[in-house]
Amino acid sequence: MTTAQPAHGPLHWVDGTMPEFDQAVLRIPIVGFLEYCLRGIGQVVFMNSPITGAFILAAAWTHEPYLGFSGTIGVLASTLTALVLGFDRGAIHAGLFGFNGVLVGLALGLFLSPQWDVLVIVWTVVLSAASSILMAALGSVFGGAWGVPPLTLPFNFVTLLFLVSALQLSRGHLGDLVEPGAPAVTGPEVQTALRESASAVGDTDAVAVINAIFRGIGQLFFLNSLLAGVLIIVGIAFCSRIAAGFALVGSAVGMLTGMALGADGVQIYNGLWGFNSFDAALAIAGVFFVLTWRSALLGVLCAIFTAVLFGAIASIFVPWGLPALTLPFCFGTLTFLLLKGASKYFTFVPPADVVTPEEHLRRARREREALSAEGQS
Amino acid sequence: MTTAQPAHGPLHWVDGTMPEFDQAVLRIPIVGFLEYCLRGIGQVVFMNSPITGAFILAAAWTHEPYLGFSGTIGVLASTLTALVLGFDRGAIHAGLFGFNGVLVGLALGLFLSPQWDVLVIVWTVVLSAASSILMAALGSVFGGAWGVPPLTLPFNFVTLLFLVSALQLSRGHLGDLVEPGAPAVTGPEVQTALRESASAVGDTDAVAVINAIFRGIGQLFFLNSLLAGVLIIVGIAFCSRIAAGFALVGSAVGMLTGMALGADGVQIYNGLWGFNSFDAALAIAGVFFVLTWRSALLGVLCAIFTAVLFGAIASIFVPWGLPALTLPFCFGTLTFLLLKGASKYFTFVPPADVVTPEEHLRRARREREALSAEGQS
Amino acid sequence: MTTAQPAHGPLHWVDGTMPEFDQAVLRIPIVGFLEYCLRGIGQVVFMNSPITGAFILAAAWTHEPYLGFSGTIGVLASTLTALVLGFDRGAIHAGLFGFNGVLVGLALGLFLSPQWDVLVIVWTVVLSAASSILMAALGSVFGGAWGVPPLTLPFNFVTLLFLVSALQLSRGHLGDLVEPGAPAVTGPEVQTALRESASAVGDTDAVAVINAIFRGIGQLFFLNSLLAGVLIIVGIAFCSRIAAGFALVGSAVGMLTGMALGADGVQIYNGLWGFNSFDAALAIAGVFFVLTWRSALLGVLCAIFTAVLFGAIASIFVPWGLPALTLPFCFGTLTFLLLKGASKYFTFVPPADVVTPEEHLRRARREREALSAEGQS
Repeated sequence: MTTAQPAHGPLHWVDGTMPEFDQAVLRIPIVGFLEYCLRGIGQVVFMNSPITGAFILAAAWTHEPYLGFSGTIGVLASTLTALVLGFDRGAIHAGLFGFNGVLVGLALGLFLSPQWDVLVIVWTVVLSAASSILMAALGSVFGGAWGVPPLTLPFNFVTLLFLVSALQLSRGHLGDLVEPGAPAVTGPEVQTALRESASAVGDTDAVAVINAIFRGIGQLFFLNSLLAGVLIIVGIAFCSRIAAGFALVGSAVGMLTGMALGADGVQIYNGLWGFNSFDAALAIAGVFFVLTWRSALLGVLCAIFTAVLFGAIASIFVPWGLPALTLPFCFGTLTFLLLKGASKYFTFVPPADVVTPEEHLRRARREREALSAEGQS
Repeated sequence: MTTAQPAHGPLHWVDGTMPEFDQAVLRIPIVGFLEYCLRGIGQVVFMNSPITGAFILAAAWTHEPYLGFSGTIGVLASTLTALVLGFDRGAIHAGLFGFNGVLVGLALGLFLSPQWDVLVIVWTVVLSAASSILMAALGSVFGGAWGVPPLTLPFNFVTLLFLVSALQLSRGHLGDLVEPGAPAVTGPEVQTALRESASAVGDTDAVAVINAIFRGIGQLFFLNSLLAGVLIIVGIAFCSRIAAGFALVGSAVGMLTGMALGADGVQIYNGLWGFNSFDAALAIAGVFFVLTWRSALLGVLCAIFTAVLFGAIASIFVPWGLPALTLPFCFGTLTFLLLKGASKYFTFVPPADVVTPEEHLRRARREREALSAEGQS
Repeated sequence: MTTAQPAHGPLHWVDGTMPEFDQAVLRIPIVGFLEYCLRGIGQVVFMNSPITGAFILAAAWTHEPYLGFSGTIGVLASTLTALVLGFDRGAIHAGLFGFNGVLVGLALGLFLSPQWDVLVIVWTVVLSAASSILMAALGSVFGGAWGVPPLTLPFNFVTLLFLVSALQLSRGHLGDLVEPGAPAVTGPEVQTALRESASAVGDTDAVAVINAIFRGIGQLFFLNSLLAGVLIIVGIAFCSRIAAGFALVGSAVGMLTGMALGADGVQIYNGLWGFNSFDAALAIAGVFFVLTWRSALLGVLCAIFTAVLFGAIASIFVPWGLPALTLPFCFGTLTFLLLKGASKYFTFVPPADVVTPEEHLRRARREREALSAEGQS
């Protein structure tokens, strides 16, 4: 994810990974650091672009200022930690030590309480910093032997371990969303009608579906809001239209899987069945596999698989009342990434060569042309 | 497991991995596909033989037609998925994309309800197909860095994840066998007398022991029946007498371990302490390690270790009411396979070179003879 | 951990890894075997020294004779198993097949009941032996692909799997310390004042802190006693003063982390927040990374991370009533070991080259001198 290529067309300054902008701001130290952080936010959706990051950050601040604040200190703390500990500069630069931190910040902003509490902010800084250590450690295991990235596993591990330990800590500051319970066969009583809350009446179909899809985009960043979802899609589209398209497709596939399985309609309406699937679809269809009709189909399959994983992990976590976070995305996407050597139908893009889906298509075309030119001479 | 060697003796057409039969049927497309599927069923017990597969399938259909049907669509769906996604032909051919699928089918046939329900059949097809994706993904992790096969982990993951998510799904169609509960120290109240059900009186010792051993064979395929166990042993014996022998030894060792630990006598009678241990013993003593008295002993140790793992995993899964499936077999066998480089006493057979225990012995003898001939010249 | 280097100074016979003593006793077969076992006990704290092992063993026997006995048969059984199965002689010799066994013995001595029961002793022998099989298996996974040791994971897996299965076994012989319960948000009611038991009044600060730190040393070996902690520190100091220092620092950091998080004061007083952190700090600061001010800081960070992991794992295990054992140490230390390739600031000592922190410093100095001499010529 470290190689940046110049984009094409009139919007080339804000399109793709923006290497020219990068060269311009790198000369100013603090601005350069902030740019890494914005790229880090964009990397949650595999977009190495400060514009994508800025849109996501704006969505957080406008939805709920404390979430914006908490996510911001998360990305700052994790990126700074990576610099201080001497981790790979190219990776820091591409935002790879920021995307776990921003998610730690956003998650703790939602699951700890009260907001703006000094101790809650201290835990947020410390745990975001820890996510960078875990990123470096897991990166060497995943990248070395298996050739795949650890995705957002560092965020998931750090956040879940803190939340579960906080059950028994007097300074854990757990909010009401973490509520331990006993697993039971609740399937037969589940209400599947799409609606915003348990007490609400069902919306019209179109409104419910639009909410489910766009809240499914926002929920990746713990932003349960239609507007946040729209802002994030626009931010992604600045960097890659293909990615923005598959984000929407993935969120819709996650929603449909939840509906087919007969999941709780309140969960679906609020995007909980979409956010893991959308990031998974986007990663498989275009980012890590060059886009073809086959890899598009693989992305859809991965979105379905990831949605089932969401149901499973949410159910496994019931005894401790923990959220599934993005573990379903991690396990679903890693499963499909590991198909890289198993089939001749898919062209894998090694993590170090990832740019944008559009650029991968251009590269593949250039390679085909070079091969055919060679064949003719 | 892809290399097939001609067998010897008058029964050579049905003995071993049957490469001559293979050559004959491969010319007929649909028949060839069905042959892969039968080999896939045999591969659950590491027998790359359509005869073994046919006996197991017959055991399922005669025990409970719906289980036979469900297992059949499982193996068809998983093998077909591997072909469509372009996975390795040699591996598909040897049944390596069928053994997880048939187990998914059999397990869902038992744990979902009602039988012959359209939605239940749809879930069975989809999840069997997913097992092939997981097989390819895990195969690259396990085979690449560690040189061991993923065994039946894809079946376990797919089935357990669906069952646990189904707790909370209105279309999950869970049967009564999945019953969440609270872990407790129940050891002191456990009834250890071997008997068929909680209300039954204890059988005579010999009858109870024969039931435990042969139901322990059948239970690998979710067939709780003495007859099924006998049919499966006969099917294994067509391919390898050594394997059939260690299957019985392993099931007996699992039973004895359960009795020594003071496990529930109803579980033991119904073969639940035998089915993981028998497949583990068979795998270690002859299939993955060339048979010697030392590797025979190692197989027995692995059967004991696997039986303890069965007790542990069954206990861990109590909160969600999940079955242990063949996770104990996977973890137990993988542990002992990973000893391959640790001791000079054992000759490991790499997964790609696995044929039958008998053929491994012949190969080892030829190699010794070649070495001694070299030494003399 | 297999290379032994002669130490320096007047105490050189009992300082460091004692290679001269080793040469002397190796000629006497039984004494040689006992020396491996003592080194195995020392290896729990990464000290390849029979003196360290002897002090730890003395601490166990004086604290509670049955724990001393149980630990002794554990280390004997695991070391003997490794010899019988033909595992690497150099590793057995350095105690690497003993440290898991002694911990299995000590843990089962505490968690099974009654003491001196024949069946309890049989389980202890069998499970200690099994830890050596798991050590060889995990060693090939961890050492091969990742270049890190499996630490005490074999001990943790074997012990936890037996304890959890024993919940449902009539011959499991579980003691009262394993008590399943339901997770709940208990944080707000936690009493954080440091004191020996729930009914005791708080000690003076200095006494409480000294207890927490030294019991934190003893608790690694399940010895909840200030005296045991002192004896173990003295034993470590014979082999390495740096390691002894970081053991105390690590235990103090674990205690402070527990206090900062608002953990139960009874747990902290009794050393439960210290024992994982002290072994982690010692491993990172000097043993696996050459001691510098940066690696000292890394050791402190690892001790904090490990303490949080203790809180998390203890909370995850509530439904089954299982102890966290040294899983927090394993996961915390492995995370930081995997940073070996991620930063230019730290000099990693490969497991096969580990001696003592002091000797690593001398080696690093010699290398610098050799380099500068080369530069001048």
